[in-house]
Amino acid sequence: MRSIGRTRWAIAEGYIPSHSHGPEPEMTSHETVCLLNATDQDAQVSITIFFSDREPEGPYAVRVPARRTRHVRFNDLSDPAPVPIGVDFASVIESDVPIVVQHTRLDSRQAENALLSTIAFAGND
Amino acid sequence: MRSIGRTRWAIAEGYIPSHSHGPEPEMTSHETVCLLNATDQDAQVSITIFFSDREPEGPYAVRVPARRTRHVRFNDLSDPAPVPIGVDFASVIESDVPIVVQHTRLDSRQAENALLSTIAFAGND
Amino acid sequence: MRSIGRTRWAIAEGYIPSHSHGPEPEMTSHETVCLLNATDQDAQVSITIFFSDREPEGPYAVRVPARRTRHVRFNDLSDPAPVPIGVDFASVIESDVPIVVQHTRLDSRQAENALLSTIAFAGND
Amino acid sequence: MRSIGRTRWAIAEGYIPSHSHGPEPEMTSHETVCLLNATDQDAQVSITIFFSDREPEGPYAVRVPARRTRHVRFNDLSDPAPVPIGVDFASVIESDVPIVVQHTRLDSRQAENALLSTIAFAGND
Repeated sequence: MRSIGRTRWAIAEGYIPSHSHGPEPEMTSHETVCLLNATDQDAQVSITIFFSDREPEGPYAVRVPARRTRHVRFNDLSDPAPVPIGVDFASVIESDVPIVVQHTRLDSRQAENALLSTIAFAGND
Repeated sequence: MRSIGRTRWAIAEGYIPSHSHGPEPEMTSHETVCLLNATDQDAQVSITIFFSDREPEGPYAVRVPARRTRHVRFNDLSDPAPVPIGVDFASVIESDVPIVVQHTRLDSRQAENALLSTIAFAGND
Repeated sequence: MRSIGRTRWAIAEGYIPSHSHGPEPEMTSHETVCLLNATDQDAQVSITIFFSDREPEGPYAVRVPARRTRHVRFNDLSDPAPVPIGVDFASVIESDVPIVVQHTRLDSRQAENALLSTIAFAGND
Repeated sequence: MRSIGRTRWAIAEGYIPSHSHGPEPEMTSHETVCLLNATDQDAQVSITIFFSDREPEGPYAVRVPARRTRHVRFNDLSDPAPVPIGVDFASVIESDVPIVVQHTRLDSRQAENALLSTIAFAGND
């Protein structure tokens, strides 16, 4: 398949809700970055997290094999440091091959869950 | 009407919730790809589904007649194989004429439904 | 202000839920196209509605004065014909000056409302 | 880090719900513009608010330091004037360095919250 995507992406919104309702892990509140690598080469992806009141954290390294998708929960990132709960953040996603990036949140702080999603902003390669 | 759209699109997020509340089929949890063909020629659309742990499935063939829209539920795709429930996926959508692609989910796993939607990522033609 | 926007836009998703909960008109289920005209000239906007099983309807004429926004509910369009309830549709939005178009739905079919929104697809001018 | 983003953005949808459920300020209904400045220079951001029935208000001045994100609630803008509650608006966001802009709403008018989000429309620099 011809490749599709870009190598630099950004998500300006980020927030991991501090609590949840419903069965874990399916209904745990989470903030997700969905990565699609439709190329025939493995993608080495670097995520940098930006905050409102301190220097950026990262890069967080994520590998997405050729012809695979990975839906990464920010909640699960731990190296170099966990992403703090209940604070505003943003992220820049860089890859060595073209990928497609989408941002989704499941918020289950109240009894019924809420969802949001958007394709991330695609920068120039 | 002058045509509008692109011939290659991608959606990095995909997930068919495993259960539902409310009357079927209106309130059945579903993941939808909305296709708009505003041209005067029928569109032959091919959807390829990507997974986290195995090779892509497809192509799924969908025909969108000239000057028509089709809102395709991933739940309803069956040839060459149904899309599995409750697993992460992503998709690439290719058409022989320019189309517009939007991604929508209705999640009714809990008593009240949640919605998300985004225009898909438009690749270069 | 320097103008911002495009003259041709598309929304592939469209659906007016058939019923509602909560006080009208604030909580009536609705499908909205938000139009921003940041230019210094009035915009003459034409909306064409596409269906899955019949020829397009329209154009619906909407005027957006200079330096104004209009949030148009598809529910309120009546000339040349009301937009049917509970059926899939899509739309193309054309303007004689650059505008910005965003798509939002409030779904109050169940007791708690759900929301979706996305910037529409911007075609080439 | 190489910069990512644009200097001119627009959001056609805007609405601050008139009431809320749940603990403040976390669950107060709000309309947010998320700004990411991934450059090494402070960003001077100007937000102009457009209405349906009167001249635009603004500019509202927001500073986003180098390598920082700010999630600005329209509810909190006060100079030159508060953004009115319960009315339709739209916004144009201009910056002296490239930024990334995303629009999010939490609507808690009913007992369970609803969410929407989209990357804003990126104009030409």
